[in-house]
Amino acid sequence: MTTVPTTRVPQEERTRAMRARLLEATVDCLVERGFTGTSTTLVSERAGVSRGAQLHHFPSKNALVLAAVEHLTVVRGAELAAAAARLPTGATRTRAVLEMLGDHFASPVFFAALELWVAARTDEALLAAVAPLEQRVGREAHRLVVDALGADEAQPGVRELVQATLDLVRGLGLATTITDDAKRRGRILDQWALVLDTHLQGSPS
Amino acid sequence: MTTVPTTRVPQEERTRAMRARLLEATVDCLVERGFTGTSTTLVSERAGVSRGAQLHHFPSKNALVLAAVEHLTVVRGAELAAAAARLPTGATRTRAVLEMLGDHFASPVFFAALELWVAARTDEALLAAVAPLEQRVGREAHRLVVDALGADEAQPGVRELVQATLDLVRGLGLATTITDDAKRRGRILDQWALVLDTHLQGSPS
Repeated sequence: MTTVPTTRVPQEERTRAMRARLLEATVDCLVERGFTGTSTTLVSERAGVSRGAQLHHFPSKNALVLAAVEHLTVVRGAELAAAAARLPTGATRTRAVLEMLGDHFASPVFFAALELWVAARTDEALLAAVAPLEQRVGREAHRLVVDALGADEAQPGVRELVQATLDLVRGLGLATTITDDAKRRGRILDQWALVLDTHLQGSPS
Repeated sequence: MTTVPTTRVPQEERTRAMRARLLEATVDCLVERGFTGTSTTLVSERAGVSRGAQLHHFPSKNALVLAAVEHLTVVRGAELAAAAARLPTGATRTRAVLEMLGDHFASPVFFAALELWVAARTDEALLAAVAPLEQRVGREAHRLVVDALGADEAQPGVRELVQATLDLVRGLGLATTITDDAKRRGRILDQWALVLDTHLQGSPS
């Protein structure tokens, strides 16, 4: 006589999967419909999760959107770190770093975050929650770029050039929402790579 | 016997003033409450204009918001040109140009435009109207910066550095909506000025 193995998924695992579905549905809604067009009803339908279960985990739209953007940031941060590990060494490295950043800031993660930022500008409670998340994300991105470029922040001006690089790709990402001009972006990043190679003293790893 | 001069304001003038009040009230609403929080009812109350008159001039919220951002862009474009005319000459000029741009992109005109851009991202009809306005504004800003910096666009890479400068200040403006860190912005612009002075071949006028 054979025993059928228990295939019941543990409660903890099911909860985790449900949360992930809710967060991914929220991101999809933000990207497609914006902050205003995102409702908890729409998200629960999309995720196939009951309203009760959703409210248990995320009691408000703001809580849901914040958790979704944080989740996405973690996922994409890991993707970015993986992409950074595959970067070429040598003369083409700086340009490849910029390509990676440019792609990141023209992707759904940026659009979802943008919706959150702009909503937070006129919503005090949301801003109080977004600001620390944004600062943490900013520090992590800065660290990643310093490492990827092999930049020596002890040199004067290097820290500011790394920050400027992140502000530049953020600005390019914002322009993308209106006119996605990849050629223009490419030419700007070509030129910026030349500038960085001239001014950064570090040797790319 | 003295004749009292006719003080009646001509109809055309009254219409012009009413339109201006509506557009300014719309900008104020956008900055304070965002695109979502802006309604035609709120704007007409704020401007002290009847709903009928408002609808006569601007038949929809989108029409009103677009006209408001265009109006603001013209007004602020003129202010920017006037500021450019007062810029110092000599060694401090580049940094002064960047200060002027940084202020512009951290001001209500940018926040109002940002609300419009982000709303347009998920609203096809609005995007169709915003995109040409944005392209025109972009060209004018580019022209202004080229002139202010005395940049020679015939030199390779110069055009791209001017574009990068505008994308940078746009990115800095977006960061301002979450944390207004003027010191950080100042240090980045200091460094950017050094980069521009090294790479732009033109002689500032």
